[in-house]
Amino acid sequence: MIQENKPPLYVCPSPALLHLYDVSGSIVVIIDVLRATSTICTALFHGAKRVIPVASVEECIQKGEELQAITAGERDGIIASGLQHGNSPFEYPVSFIKNKTLVLTTTNGTRLLDMASDAKQIITGSFPNLTPVCNYLLHQNQPVILGCAAWKDRVNLEDMLFAGAVVNSIKEKFYINCDSAFIAETLYLHAKDNLYACMQHASHFHRLAKHGLEEDIKYCLTIDIAPSLPILKDGALINIC
Amino acid sequence: MIQENKPPLYVCPSPALLHLYDVSGSIVVIIDVLRATSTICTALFHGAKRVIPVASVEECIQKGEELQAITAGERDGIIASGLQHGNSPFEYPVSFIKNKTLVLTTTNGTRLLDMASDAKQIITGSFPNLTPVCNYLLHQNQPVILGCAAWKDRVNLEDMLFAGAVVNSIKEKFYINCDSAFIAETLYLHAKDNLYACMQHASHFHRLAKHGLEEDIKYCLTIDIAPSLPILKDGALINIC
Repeated sequence: MIQENKPPLYVCPSPALLHLYDVSGSIVVIIDVLRATSTICTALFHGAKRVIPVASVEECIQKGEELQAITAGERDGIIASGLQHGNSPFEYPVSFIKNKTLVLTTTNGTRLLDMASDAKQIITGSFPNLTPVCNYLLHQNQPVILGCAAWKDRVNLEDMLFAGAVVNSIKEKFYINCDSAFIAETLYLHAKDNLYACMQHASHFHRLAKHGLEEDIKYCLTIDIAPSLPILKDGALINIC
Repeated sequence: MIQENKPPLYVCPSPALLHLYDVSGSIVVIIDVLRATSTICTALFHGAKRVIPVASVEECIQKGEELQAITAGERDGIIASGLQHGNSPFEYPVSFIKNKTLVLTTTNGTRLLDMASDAKQIITGSFPNLTPVCNYLLHQNQPVILGCAAWKDRVNLEDMLFAGAVVNSIKEKFYINCDSAFIAETLYLHAKDNLYACMQHASHFHRLAKHGLEEDIKYCLTIDIAPSLPILKDGALINIC
């Protein structure tokens, strides 16, 4: 339990708790496994030029017109009125997204991105880009906050699972005095041999399964299937992998 | 996953998230394992007439004078200036507390009690009174919120462990669609064979161990060592066991 000059790492389980952490002094990893940050790393891995996260549907429409970009976003599991595409990673294959700009709005993930805008640096993470996220954090030697997007501020299983996977992978290089980090890692170690089975306990699983999105869920839990590293620069997420 | 007319049960991991839940329609269990709710059930089990929780040291002093009662409370691990006693359950043996009124203020637990004042009913729980808490909830057939006092709004291990123990014990009689409840139960199942060993990962463990309070921590993790049932009536916690 000696600090040994390692940078601190915290897990913030809900956007409603973000104010408790030193956002401006940290790299914040935005985590919205189902499905914003899974779709972001997929679009970028498939060659999207950039993904611009916006908080509202109106802003999405406006920005899309301004930049002649693809607009995407859902509200309550349905493509929002006025937008072209949804939140599924399967909507963004190479043939469609390569060299394009995607403007994206989601219920929880893009809101947290907005809230964390003071961070020293913002990257996004999900199981499809677990290893690039971990490698990046290991090389920066900076304080880290793993920020879960949650569900309308309620702690959710899938984002805590991913936070736990990151903690488990990089903890030796960080000073961790954070109960949420221990809880997330314990949860991940319990579930890691079958993440999909564990996810059947999640409230979000039932919301998405209603829409027939089991394949989306499986994809979003697949480690390193879209190993890009989305980093926020001038309001857009670009791939620096 | 069928509701079957069972009442809902939620785990609220931090007071900063309490507004997300239907407090006024629920029995709220206040959980502050280290040490407020462990000390409350102990004082009542040892015959205290009532425990009056108050939010501030000033209120504690004033109420103590008004009622000729014992005053207790700590700030940062030290008995607060103007008060007589601390937060340790060992300070309240039968010989001292029987038939007395205790006015108590703590950093997190009494604050959450205050925040939950709209609840249909408030009881307090910790490992020393686990079974009375579970039995009570099983017999009420009412919606339940297990409210963790946390540490200055940050999620903590010990309160989540106790919430998980309650979930594990009573879940068959409740409709649970709450990721925090699943997370808490998973944590408890991981730790239950040696709660004290698990607690060595908690940030609070290190705060208290600095003050030499390992025995307090062991006591606060001992199941059913003080099986009272504190319930809030007219601003005071009384034992209805």
